[in-house]
Amino acid sequence: MSASVAVVMGSRSDYPVVQNAVTLLESFGIAVEMRVLSAHRTPEEAAAFARGARGRGVGVIIAAAGKAAHLPGVLAAYTTLPVIGLPVKTSLMGGMDSLLSIVQMPAGIPVATVGVDASQNAALLAVEMLAITDGELADRLADYRKSMADKVLADDANIRKGE
Amino acid sequence: MSASVAVVMGSRSDYPVVQNAVTLLESFGIAVEMRVLSAHRTPEEAAAFARGARGRGVGVIIAAAGKAAHLPGVLAAYTTLPVIGLPVKTSLMGGMDSLLSIVQMPAGIPVATVGVDASQNAALLAVEMLAITDGELADRLADYRKSMADKVLADDANIRKGE
Amino acid sequence: MSASVAVVMGSRSDYPVVQNAVTLLESFGIAVEMRVLSAHRTPEEAAAFARGARGRGVGVIIAAAGKAAHLPGVLAAYTTLPVIGLPVKTSLMGGMDSLLSIVQMPAGIPVATVGVDASQNAALLAVEMLAITDGELADRLADYRKSMADKVLADDANIRKGE
Amino acid sequence: MSASVAVVMGSRSDYPVVQNAVTLLESFGIAVEMRVLSAHRTPEEAAAFARGARGRGVGVIIAAAGKAAHLPGVLAAYTTLPVIGLPVKTSLMGGMDSLLSIVQMPAGIPVATVGVDASQNAALLAVEMLAITDGELADRLADYRKSMADKVLADDANIRKGE
Amino acid sequence: MSASVAVVMGSRSDYPVVQNAVTLLESFGIAVEMRVLSAHRTPEEAAAFARGARGRGVGVIIAAAGKAAHLPGVLAAYTTLPVIGLPVKTSLMGGMDSLLSIVQMPAGIPVATVGVDASQNAALLAVEMLAITDGELADRLADYRKSMADKVLADDANIRKGE
Amino acid sequence: MSASVAVVMGSRSDYPVVQNAVTLLESFGIAVEMRVLSAHRTPEEAAAFARGARGRGVGVIIAAAGKAAHLPGVLAAYTTLPVIGLPVKTSLMGGMDSLLSIVQMPAGIPVATVGVDASQNAALLAVEMLAITDGELADRLADYRKSMADKVLADDANIRKGE
Amino acid sequence: MSASVAVVMGSRSDYPVVQNAVTLLESFGIAVEMRVLSAHRTPEEAAAFARGARGRGVGVIIAAAGKAAHLPGVLAAYTTLPVIGLPVKTSLMGGMDSLLSIVQMPAGIPVATVGVDASQNAALLAVEMLAITDGELADRLADYRKSMADKVLADDANIRKGE
Amino acid sequence: MSASVAVVMGSRSDYPVVQNAVTLLESFGIAVEMRVLSAHRTPEEAAAFARGARGRGVGVIIAAAGKAAHLPGVLAAYTTLPVIGLPVKTSLMGGMDSLLSIVQMPAGIPVATVGVDASQNAALLAVEMLAITDGELADRLADYRKSMADKVLADDANIRKGE
Repeated sequence: MSASVAVVMGSRSDYPVVQNAVTLLESFGIAVEMRVLSAHRTPEEAAAFARGARGRGVGVIIAAAGKAAHLPGVLAAYTTLPVIGLPVKTSLMGGMDSLLSIVQMPAGIPVATVGVDASQNAALLAVEMLAITDGELADRLADYRKSMADKVLADDANIRKGE
Repeated sequence: MSASVAVVMGSRSDYPVVQNAVTLLESFGIAVEMRVLSAHRTPEEAAAFARGARGRGVGVIIAAAGKAAHLPGVLAAYTTLPVIGLPVKTSLMGGMDSLLSIVQMPAGIPVATVGVDASQNAALLAVEMLAITDGELADRLADYRKSMADKVLADDANIRKGE
Repeated sequence: MSASVAVVMGSRSDYPVVQNAVTLLESFGIAVEMRVLSAHRTPEEAAAFARGARGRGVGVIIAAAGKAAHLPGVLAAYTTLPVIGLPVKTSLMGGMDSLLSIVQMPAGIPVATVGVDASQNAALLAVEMLAITDGELADRLADYRKSMADKVLADDANIRKGE
Repeated sequence: MSASVAVVMGSRSDYPVVQNAVTLLESFGIAVEMRVLSAHRTPEEAAAFARGARGRGVGVIIAAAGKAAHLPGVLAAYTTLPVIGLPVKTSLMGGMDSLLSIVQMPAGIPVATVGVDASQNAALLAVEMLAITDGELADRLADYRKSMADKVLADDANIRKGE
Repeated sequence: MSASVAVVMGSRSDYPVVQNAVTLLESFGIAVEMRVLSAHRTPEEAAAFARGARGRGVGVIIAAAGKAAHLPGVLAAYTTLPVIGLPVKTSLMGGMDSLLSIVQMPAGIPVATVGVDASQNAALLAVEMLAITDGELADRLADYRKSMADKVLADDANIRKGE
Repeated sequence: MSASVAVVMGSRSDYPVVQNAVTLLESFGIAVEMRVLSAHRTPEEAAAFARGARGRGVGVIIAAAGKAAHLPGVLAAYTTLPVIGLPVKTSLMGGMDSLLSIVQMPAGIPVATVGVDASQNAALLAVEMLAITDGELADRLADYRKSMADKVLADDANIRKGE
Repeated sequence: MSASVAVVMGSRSDYPVVQNAVTLLESFGIAVEMRVLSAHRTPEEAAAFARGARGRGVGVIIAAAGKAAHLPGVLAAYTTLPVIGLPVKTSLMGGMDSLLSIVQMPAGIPVATVGVDASQNAALLAVEMLAITDGELADRLADYRKSMADKVLADDANIRKGE
Repeated sequence: MSASVAVVMGSRSDYPVVQNAVTLLESFGIAVEMRVLSAHRTPEEAAAFARGARGRGVGVIIAAAGKAAHLPGVLAAYTTLPVIGLPVKTSLMGGMDSLLSIVQMPAGIPVATVGVDASQNAALLAVEMLAITDGELADRLADYRKSMADKVLADDANIRKGE
């Protein structure tokens, strides 16, 4: 059985950002464990979650956080599973604080960072990681790519017809 | 047999940045395929490389690039393997151009971005991806983490003794 | 017969930005080929488009894209026609990601970049390029400049009269 | 007996930045506990340190860190003592990554942030905190202020004399 | 009797930002002195206020200001009490001007800076400073932390139940 | 008779920004010459305006412009009168483009730059320049300062009374 | 006979940046007119130069400038020839001031902007513009592209052999 | 007799930046009063200096400062003379902190800001202010402009001759 993906948000208010990721992961037939865990308000629960993740069958962790967005890095400190950091948009330069706090991790503990508010890409990256050794999942990714391409091609055809 | 990791640089001049990643990957017993491929000067070779990567046994692609750093995104467009983007430091805000050009990918084609010049983290992230389904590799990652921790603990002991 | 201008957008959602450019080009009597082509979702169609552009009578390509805006650079990799990059506004510092991803091209493959959301300037720059060897078009540009100046002079006259 | 100040660095390489702070604190007669603790490589030791700090007589914690500088925030999550964050200069916009990762803490867990590489100010801020209820320490701070002013006045006198 | 906290704003228009801080401080049983003082329009009153603060029983000063936000630094110049700087959001990069004007103080006169518009953290930091030597206040802080954690744990429980 | 102040905007759309400046200047009894002049669309009229300004009795020029805001610098190239540059807010980092294009003038041709959209300060700076040698105007400036201070003191009194 | 390219620098000190462009243009057999013209110190000569350029057989103008880099925009105001703006690196965010001052031109007067210090790309863009209607020049561009590709392929071959 | 110019630096270490300004002012025959005054370490001396400046015959104040560069604004709060702010280069984005702390003054108290480290322009702006009502000084400014233009014209002539 394929590994699950954990989707963690630092605050319930980040739910609208991660919702897309959850839906997309489930559409790929991947089990999702959704959690609200704060690196600063519930640090011990966050640590315990990350420590136990591999044992519970989690393959990849997606962590969304904004401002001084420590959550992805704090989870990464307690697990050797890949952690995908999803920076949440803020009012300071549009989320530059979230992005830098996530991507500029010190040597030794990486976080796989996607764009600001890029929940769809966070989910697809998790699928790609699981698909390294799962040919069927890789095929589904290829299908997903094809459907995206078909959408662009249809838009292209329409615009060429002046629609 | 475990998947290999491809380490691609946009220009030979990026070699000093990626060298650490190659050495580190090899120390984990992972086969490395090193390439110089330019998204703009040899776009067809870059596309052909990415298209054929999964078939050749590559599990993860690491792509280093600077300035308008399109290489990771261009490779990602031609494969469903996870692509790790390694932004190279530049003189414009210290590599902010490289970072934004890599991390802010459009919805649908993610790039797993690490920090500017963070070649060690690029390699470790690739190992983490391969270790999702490879318990032995996960153990080696845990050992690596432990050796890093031991180094910090030793530094801590020394500084407490005033050394 | 004068060359045409291709106006390419990375996504149908960029249409409102490029629409001005198309209207302005047509007002100069220039044939416009409008396309939706994604550097990442339809990379092969994008490459094919750029490769064949000169042969189809295209003189200049305008490419609009946002975030990690690779489209102008990717098209430029497949043609020696001048490519004008039109960065689309985003929420990250107002489009700084789009701007840097377009303008900071590596040595060898230039992209002629205009300001963020500056579709009018993208169109006028294309006309200027075609007018290098087309005296009639140059005259029409001079007329356009004059009408802009007249508008400023009228505004100036009104404000001096206190209107 | 007055409380001590803990000076924590995320890596031994941050020692040159914090050294000034230690010397300055000691010149005020304040006991200093210096530690190397990594938020990511030794997270449990860092947590244990912060949890026990108040009990060991620590009054203020100074934490220096660079890049995605999580150390001050991670320590703050485990103690209600004030934590002073000292951002270390980096090559990305001169330390903007460190600054934003430290200062933009989520609501509920503050970090008292000083300027990039501002170790002298980190130490003086710690002294000010301890001096709220310690009149003698407040007097020593006033003396320190006066000696700084005297230095400026002497420079002013010299420059007016053309020296 | 415990020291009070002064909450100073540079302009009446900053009141909505500081209001949270006042309410939170009072919920901890701390006396609050609220003032409108401008570093530039009423510099002498600002100086007089800061000079006399310690004598009036003030333990910590919170100063909110935006743009070239000199108020916290100007107050700090006239007192050895800790000054907490609260940068107010502006339209220039979302308050980067306020943040840098406050945090980058010259050596010798620190300002304890919190995040942009982070009035809750400004208040909590003031409480933490007063709680260094006030065990009862430290207990109340621990309770406040616990209530924040309980809120996160409840959100976590709900999201796991799919609510 | 005192010199007048010219208030120039690069486009009629900048009128809302400069309007405050005009009203304020007139309240000081200063004659204002308002103009719409574009550095790029009517460069010759702009040059002619600046060349003739001193001869027409203009003492100071205020020039408002946004984005690549060349107008203040272009006017300064044609006159030795002081030119005050007023950067207009844009969507790119909130006007950072306007600010840098105005303030970073090459050595030899200064522009006296005020904050983004700071029309009141542009006007007051012009008054201050004229008041260097005009004692009566200096007195009116002092009165204006006093009225601003009184407003702050009244706000302060109200907030202390809890109003 | 093919049109020439004018290479203009705002100051003699920019010569090291533009030298590459001149050499590269000449290697394509294009006549180059090199000029030192300042938008602010010699505005009338700059205007006269731009006004007369088309008449003298110039096809494209390259203008290099730093800081508040008005030169490209000022030249563009006086000609309908395409003007390529080459931002020169500065110490403020590595040339962000130069870049924004050049690329963010107001609607109506475009400047074709290349990357910071990207003199090679400025030259190649000029060649591409001239090659729109010059098949022989287009062939030489294709050859140049091929030689760049061959260099990358050789580097790739070497790195694959471990050299 | 013409007014003098005061050149104030926040720290003796800023002397190399202001030295150019002093020399240039003296070459125009203007008396210069040089001072070291700190907004934070000697705030009362700074206030006293500014309060008395007009009475001592000062016409313009130039104030150089770096980082949270409050000095120009603090002086401006105590005088209605025009204050020119000279931001000193720092390691944080090349002086962006100094620039924003000086230019983004609140409404009511302007500071005439020049570019980072632009001491020559600070001096010339002061001369321009004094020359509003001093025809002889205006003539000397015109001569200075002419000598700058001649230097550019000579460089232009040399480069056209291939020297």
